[in-house]
Amino acid sequence: MQIYRVDMTEGKVTTEEVKEGYAVLGGRGLTSQIIADEVDPTCHPLGANNKLVIAPGLLSGTNAPSSGRLSVGTKSPLTGTIKESNAGGTASQKLAKLGIKAIIVEGQPKNGEFYTLKVSKDGIELKDASSLLGQRNYDLGNTMRGEYGDSVCVVSVGPAGEYKLTAASIAVTDGEGRPVRHCGRGGTGAVMGSKGIKVIVIDDADAPGVSVKDKEGFKAAAKDFSKMLLDHPVCGQGLPTYGTAVLINILNEAGGLPTKNFRSGRYDGADKISGEAMFDRINERKGNPTHGCHPGCVMRCSQVYNDKDGNYLTAGFEYETIWAFGAHCTIDDLDAIATLDRLCDDIGLDTIEMGVTIGVAMEAGIIPFGDADGAIDLLQQVGEGKPLGRILGNGASFTGKAYGVTRVPTVKDQSIPAYDPRAVKGVGVTYATTTMGADHTAGYSVTANILKVGGHVDPLSKEGQVDLSRNLQIATAAVDSTGLCLFVAFAVLDKPKALPRVVDMLNAQYGLSLTVDDVSELGKAILNTEREFNKAAGFNNSHDRLPEFFKEELPPHGTTFDLTDEELDELYNF
Amino acid sequence: MQIYRVDMTEGKVTTEEVKEGYAVLGGRGLTSQIIADEVDPTCHPLGANNKLVIAPGLLSGTNAPSSGRLSVGTKSPLTGTIKESNAGGTASQKLAKLGIKAIIVEGQPKNGEFYTLKVSKDGIELKDASSLLGQRNYDLGNTMRGEYGDSVCVVSVGPAGEYKLTAASIAVTDGEGRPVRHCGRGGTGAVMGSKGIKVIVIDDADAPGVSVKDKEGFKAAAKDFSKMLLDHPVCGQGLPTYGTAVLINILNEAGGLPTKNFRSGRYDGADKISGEAMFDRINERKGNPTHGCHPGCVMRCSQVYNDKDGNYLTAGFEYETIWAFGAHCTIDDLDAIATLDRLCDDIGLDTIEMGVTIGVAMEAGIIPFGDADGAIDLLQQVGEGKPLGRILGNGASFTGKAYGVTRVPTVKDQSIPAYDPRAVKGVGVTYATTTMGADHTAGYSVTANILKVGGHVDPLSKEGQVDLSRNLQIATAAVDSTGLCLFVAFAVLDKPKALPRVVDMLNAQYGLSLTVDDVSELGKAILNTEREFNKAAGFNNSHDRLPEFFKEELPPHGTTFDLTDEELDELYNF
Repeated sequence: MQIYRVDMTEGKVTTEEVKEGYAVLGGRGLTSQIIADEVDPTCHPLGANNKLVIAPGLLSGTNAPSSGRLSVGTKSPLTGTIKESNAGGTASQKLAKLGIKAIIVEGQPKNGEFYTLKVSKDGIELKDASSLLGQRNYDLGNTMRGEYGDSVCVVSVGPAGEYKLTAASIAVTDGEGRPVRHCGRGGTGAVMGSKGIKVIVIDDADAPGVSVKDKEGFKAAAKDFSKMLLDHPVCGQGLPTYGTAVLINILNEAGGLPTKNFRSGRYDGADKISGEAMFDRINERKGNPTHGCHPGCVMRCSQVYNDKDGNYLTAGFEYETIWAFGAHCTIDDLDAIATLDRLCDDIGLDTIEMGVTIGVAMEAGIIPFGDADGAIDLLQQVGEGKPLGRILGNGASFTGKAYGVTRVPTVKDQSIPAYDPRAVKGVGVTYATTTMGADHTAGYSVTANILKVGGHVDPLSKEGQVDLSRNLQIATAAVDSTGLCLFVAFAVLDKPKALPRVVDMLNAQYGLSLTVDDVSELGKAILNTEREFNKAAGFNNSHDRLPEFFKEELPPHGTTFDLTDEELDELYNF
Repeated sequence: MQIYRVDMTEGKVTTEEVKEGYAVLGGRGLTSQIIADEVDPTCHPLGANNKLVIAPGLLSGTNAPSSGRLSVGTKSPLTGTIKESNAGGTASQKLAKLGIKAIIVEGQPKNGEFYTLKVSKDGIELKDASSLLGQRNYDLGNTMRGEYGDSVCVVSVGPAGEYKLTAASIAVTDGEGRPVRHCGRGGTGAVMGSKGIKVIVIDDADAPGVSVKDKEGFKAAAKDFSKMLLDHPVCGQGLPTYGTAVLINILNEAGGLPTKNFRSGRYDGADKISGEAMFDRINERKGNPTHGCHPGCVMRCSQVYNDKDGNYLTAGFEYETIWAFGAHCTIDDLDAIATLDRLCDDIGLDTIEMGVTIGVAMEAGIIPFGDADGAIDLLQQVGEGKPLGRILGNGASFTGKAYGVTRVPTVKDQSIPAYDPRAVKGVGVTYATTTMGADHTAGYSVTANILKVGGHVDPLSKEGQVDLSRNLQIATAAVDSTGLCLFVAFAVLDKPKALPRVVDMLNAQYGLSLTVDDVSELGKAILNTEREFNKAAGFNNSHDRLPEFFKEELPPHGTTFDLTDEELDELYNF
């Protein structure tokens, strides 16, 4: 495999052999290590000294089930921390099949020009993209497929990335060419925009494919692992049926569904926006409730959501998105939320950041709570680059500052997602302490707190939450390196034989003799690397805190986020 | 003397005796100590847990020359650091005469109400200010004088403070009732707005006055000190004649006048906006080139600037303001700059922050460089609370983020003022290291670098700059506690007998036996208190840095800011 280095200042592409230390790294492990090795932690995230690293996971491109996650690493313009954001879609598998270990993008065009990167078996070519500027992701995908064929994967920024807004995402097309899978969090799209890259087209025609050293051993482990996923009630039943939106009713029942900018943990409109309601509506309109975001996914938690006329509206319609525009903004209209999701995908915006931001805009009185049409208009203003759009497109903290609003649910300026930290305290610990800014996926304590997967830790008590979050953060850093979807964790946490099978796959592919303990050590090493970067960038324990208003009691349970600073600071004792 | 505590949550005013430790503190020394003692460094600057402390200097209200500076302390919403911002005008003297050591404002109204604080010999009264909302500072002053009499001092926020914009200032009226003296830096006006205070009216009728223990000793020392100021070429001649704008030609000549967003140290329009040009124009139009911002000032660096019809336009028209809207934005029209200054005073905005911000808006392409009418329109949008105004009114860093601009001259999100750190390296050290965010007044190394006051340190060499800045930062913290204008430093630095006379005044007033060394110790103690607060708020050495682009060479000297991180980190070794 090779590493491609793209110098956007000079417009030059070079290739490098994979350094010894990088050989057994992939995904987040690799992106974070390269950023830590090559980027000055104090650099301006949108300047020439930041880099953007794109890497498939270690197992991507193989037949390992659900292994198509693509990692993008950078210094985040939203949080100022190191950032890894990963997405499904077909990019990761295609890059791996092309023998690409990572693409490192550095420098920036001197006069703000934009380019297309064409990635194929012949290498990487830069082409002028000035004619593509202003195109939104759906149109852009069509343009690219018209030019390069239907089978390419399109990785792109919409107008938000061109404007370098810190809520800008990088869109990755799914198997049907829809720009619905996103590296959403942390403004990676703004960094791609700052590098002058409008779109990366990945064509894996005649790619050599991924070499697997022990093919039989790999096949056996993959088959076994796949069966464990299919047998698990969450991975094999809940997710394929209702998608992640199954969580709306579950969190609402648990009193942890943040409602009206985190004023309550229960939303009286929950039944209208639940996974069950979505499932019925999708079926009525002849959409598809069960769809995989990349070939080989066995959990298939995506879906195709049609509008009332039966025409395609959006796909990859996640719980966090529905929560953000729904309960958080008190919009109980699933069609409106689907339209907002579609707009985010098209403009190239993180749905979590934008949903939380619209709620903050409602808090500021720009539009009233519950105003779906107003929310749609606000997102359009982001896409059009209007001044108000420039505010909103830079996220919830930014919008709060613009309008003097103090009730802003962010950590390190990244929006807190769909689980109230006062009612799901384990995830609150993750929000506060992860290297990424508020991010549920970095240590998804919802498992033991709410879903009773991997044991049970009372979500309303602070006991055991730091240990829970720590273990999950370590495990997640490792999983994010494999290219496996994080949702395999449900099975891994419940089935003692699952993780050994992942290790078996890695060993079979790379000819290694890793143990389960090595996986944990990898996770710890990644977290330490990321945390050292953040320290050098100016962060310390005082930034590992939730906003003050989480000391207010949350109905219905009346709990507060009561972990002390000292308790939170125990997270990194490992 | 007494401390007044105003609880804006409950609408209650209480008085407290002055604690022993606070007795010999005043101005910045007192505001910083109270903030450090009472405010959680991690609180939201615009939330109920921040406080606003208003304190006269130790010598304010006496006959000490130029001793009318008012200090305002808080946690800054612009920088996130502790903040002391001081202003002239008549407030400090009136508060001191009323026996008020400090006013501590805490809490905030639950429903965003606004109040007037009426301060008089009868105490502090809260009155509903809803009818005053939206009034700009000039109108507001007239309204207040109509209600409370012509001799009151009006301390107010304009619309910018109501909107809680982080460039919002607190205006203080001068002897003629004009709102032209401002606690400009760091967004103290946003904090006042967040406390629900529109205006503070200070009526010192029948005030007891300041008691001086040794009247004769005080008189002798004050007279002597006054003479030293009048005899000094800067204090007694340069400042009274041309005001601070005398520096335009001096800095331009030195190649340190930052031009077109810090692209050059020379501005070809400098002669049109110089102090000399201003002096001629003021005289032509029958303004007043020499005016004191408070009674008893002997340096009288303020002026009254009339428009082309001979009508009053603005006063207190400073070098930094003229530079910010002038050379930085390449606007060479003094009348336009005066209009921009007037608008800032009226809307309640820091002229340095706004001038730098308009330059960044020009960098972003919102308006072209040199567009005076465009700049005026942008400031009006700030006053009207329009979305673009919300962006600009939150300063240069914020505007840079909104538009993805990386060439943004700020430290800790506060705009770098009128001296290029590559050509005046001592002040560059101050920008990087002061507890306040980029602030020339915190350690005005321009003295030895450019004016050859207090010795000479080559401005283009890094040698000696850290020592110079350190000594000045220590001295400044002490001077900022006395209520003396910082400009007395020119005399103090050049005349060995000046500082002892200041100590004599303090000893005579308070019955103390301080030495000159005690003054230095006070300065160090203040800096340490402030720095500890900042550390607890999350700051460390990595924040004591200039933006990356100061590594570019600056014409005409071709110098860069070449002090290493390690050298900068030596600043606090005292």
